Amino acid sequence: MTHYSRLHRIVIDVPQEVHSEELTFWQGATGLEMTQPLKYPEYHLADLPGQEFGLIVQRIGAGQPRVHVDIHTDDLEAEVARLEALGARREFKPHEWWVMSDPAGLLFCVIPDQPGTLHDQNAQRWD
Amino acid sequence: MTHYSRLHRIVIDVPQEVHSEELTFWQGATGLEMTQPLKYPEYHLADLPGQEFGLIVQRIGAGQPRVHVDIHTDDLEAEVARLEALGARREFKPHEWWVMSDPAGLLFCVIPDQPGTLHDQNAQRWD
Repeated sequence: MTHYSRLHRIVIDVPQEVHSEELTFWQGATGLEMTQPLKYPEYHLADLPGQEFGLIVQRIGAGQPRVHVDIHTDDLEAEVARLEALGARREFKPHEWWVMSDPAGLLFCVIPDQPGTLHDQNAQRWD
Repeated sequence: MTHYSRLHRIVIDVPQEVHSEELTFWQGATGLEMTQPLKYPEYHLADLPGQEFGLIVQRIGAGQPRVHVDIHTDDLEAEVARLEALGARREFKPHEWWVMSDPAGLLFCVIPDQPGTLHDQNAQRWD
């Protein structure tokens, strides 16, 4: 069945001890006011000016700071299976999305979007 | 003097030994055909569908795979100085752009664009 996907967000992951400083820095650097989704307060999010593309700063519990990308899709299982066939691996499913790793071992997320948000003008169609 | 800047690209940095596999994966994952600028063949680049936002895969000589972001600006010195005042540090200047580090130590690049490419509809103005 046809589904869509797109690269949709960059996520800057930082541990607790530098989170506040990092969030202030990236808001200042981009001029964006980032907001927290009520359901997931560890994220601060804003869309880039004029783009359907977003920047997120995530507070992580521990570990090294890093950057990862989010792929959004209107059919999570189909998209994850498609990416597996290209060489990615399922790592874990923390919430309603999958964390996968690419061939170099870099983590990225695959996030389900509401049907209808992705179409031929803003995403890639997979038949 | 007024200048503009914007977050404009994601760069996936991978060492030589996984570069080919990684490039194939990300082209397949996004459906984008990435092209090499003649001047810098270590980069493969494509714009995301419907967005003024790009994905780059960079071949690096050694080191761990990582992801970084590029900020583009029409006034390199003014932008780098602005980011320094926010807490970033100049690391090195490999070509006509600066590599900086954010408060968490993550590297990012600040890239000069042609005057006129950035404006109120696609970037942030700094007065």
